[in-house]
Amino acid sequence: MQERLKLIIAYDGRPFCGWQSQAGGGSIQDFIEGAFQKILNTETRVHGSGRTDAGVHALRQIAHVDVPESMHSMAVWKNALNANLPHEIRILHVSQVKGGDEGFHARFDATGKRYVYRIWNDLWMHPLEIGRAWHVPSKLDLSALRSAAVMLLGKHDFANFTANRGNDVEDTVRTISRLDAIKRCRSIHLIFEGDGFLYKMVRMLTGTLIRVAEHKMELAELNQLLQPSASKKTQFTAPAEGLYLARVFYK
Amino acid sequence: MQERLKLIIAYDGRPFCGWQSQAGGGSIQDFIEGAFQKILNTETRVHGSGRTDAGVHALRQIAHVDVPESMHSMAVWKNALNANLPHEIRILHVSQVKGGDEGFHARFDATGKRYVYRIWNDLWMHPLEIGRAWHVPSKLDLSALRSAAVMLLGKHDFANFTANRGNDVEDTVRTISRLDAIKRCRSIHLIFEGDGFLYKMVRMLTGTLIRVAEHKMELAELNQLLQPSASKKTQFTAPAEGLYLARVFYK
Repeated sequence: MQERLKLIIAYDGRPFCGWQSQAGGGSIQDFIEGAFQKILNTETRVHGSGRTDAGVHALRQIAHVDVPESMHSMAVWKNALNANLPHEIRILHVSQVKGGDEGFHARFDATGKRYVYRIWNDLWMHPLEIGRAWHVPSKLDLSALRSAAVMLLGKHDFANFTANRGNDVEDTVRTISRLDAIKRCRSIHLIFEGDGFLYKMVRMLTGTLIRVAEHKMELAELNQLLQPSASKKTQFTAPAEGLYLARVFYK
Repeated sequence: MQERLKLIIAYDGRPFCGWQSQAGGGSIQDFIEGAFQKILNTETRVHGSGRTDAGVHALRQIAHVDVPESMHSMAVWKNALNANLPHEIRILHVSQVKGGDEGFHARFDATGKRYVYRIWNDLWMHPLEIGRAWHVPSKLDLSALRSAAVMLLGKHDFANFTANRGNDVEDTVRTISRLDAIKRCRSIHLIFEGDGFLYKMVRMLTGTLIRVAEHKMELAELNQLLQPSASKKTQFTAPAEGLYLARVFYK
């Protein structure tokens, strides 16, 4: 018999080529599956709530995995996994959830996500923010940025805000329920919450919002981008190092 | 004629062998003096408020330097210096101060300093805290730590809390005016303020406070350590990576 474990995972994205398993290894999923393989001596599939790109950090990524029943306590699982992982990946919590086809599924049961995008807005990058935030040296108009954020709220076709062009297969309509810009000294945090985010969507939204805040894009142009049939994709993608998967929401 | 510049400097201490100039280079002072040399084409001495050890970070280190008068505006100095420094060292601010023998002196005029020591107190280190905090996995009694902190407040001979043994030449009496322990989730910040700190003193105080918080040292033993003639040095030195020079106070 098997039991299903739910994992809460934090990582520094910099040393890895993203969440998703790669042919040559080196992804976060690969390392976690490798840790299970070392403990169980058999190939084990780990199901994440979704991908994060190379360089993107996670404060609370969620995954599930099926393991032999009653093999270890949750505390032992956590310690055994961490002992077999690189320091930049840490299992924060392990719990038992309902397994099988009707059980908890890290990806299919997710109802939404929160991402935080961190920006350092000063002429020079702070030495302790390197790799943790995007360095934007230009003067930013936060009130313009917030007006643009309001336009993005709600249900839209975000086909122009993903590196995968929307096609018949992929539905590119998503709902953004929260988009806040919080400024503290030279640090700006953009907080995105929504029912789901397309590939590179948060980074392309951030890049575009910063263009608006630099007065290099009008709100009308942003509005055009939200009409996929009438417009080309945004050209502005913020770098991975400022992006943090902060929460995955479940019912 | 010369003018005197006051520099506010931040650095990530990890890539450097401390503040103090070294024969082979590689110190923060060496890099800043190198930046002045590139701009001025002549050897220039930079005077810091005091040393920080290898690996210790600074949020606001202070230094002064004498340069030819009216050569650049303060904004140009800041940019020219940063353009010639490694990313892990940043000049946050340059201002003009009174020069000459009666003028501002970064070291002699300092009336006190604030250091922050960051601890991550969990069985496993958080991936985004690596190199930024000391990982202490053991259970800590913060109320015992705070009782010990109260004992350290005020004027004491800290000869047992420095890597240099006190001798006739060096006065090891210092006054600690603030020692707070602030806990937020698994992160503990120790905040030290005082009129001055001996070589490795904050790290040795931190290491000793953690021993008390682990119930591995009694307050009576700590009290003994504060009587230099009756006791040996503390054996517990916290690592450099958790320590931040946060402020230098001037009249």
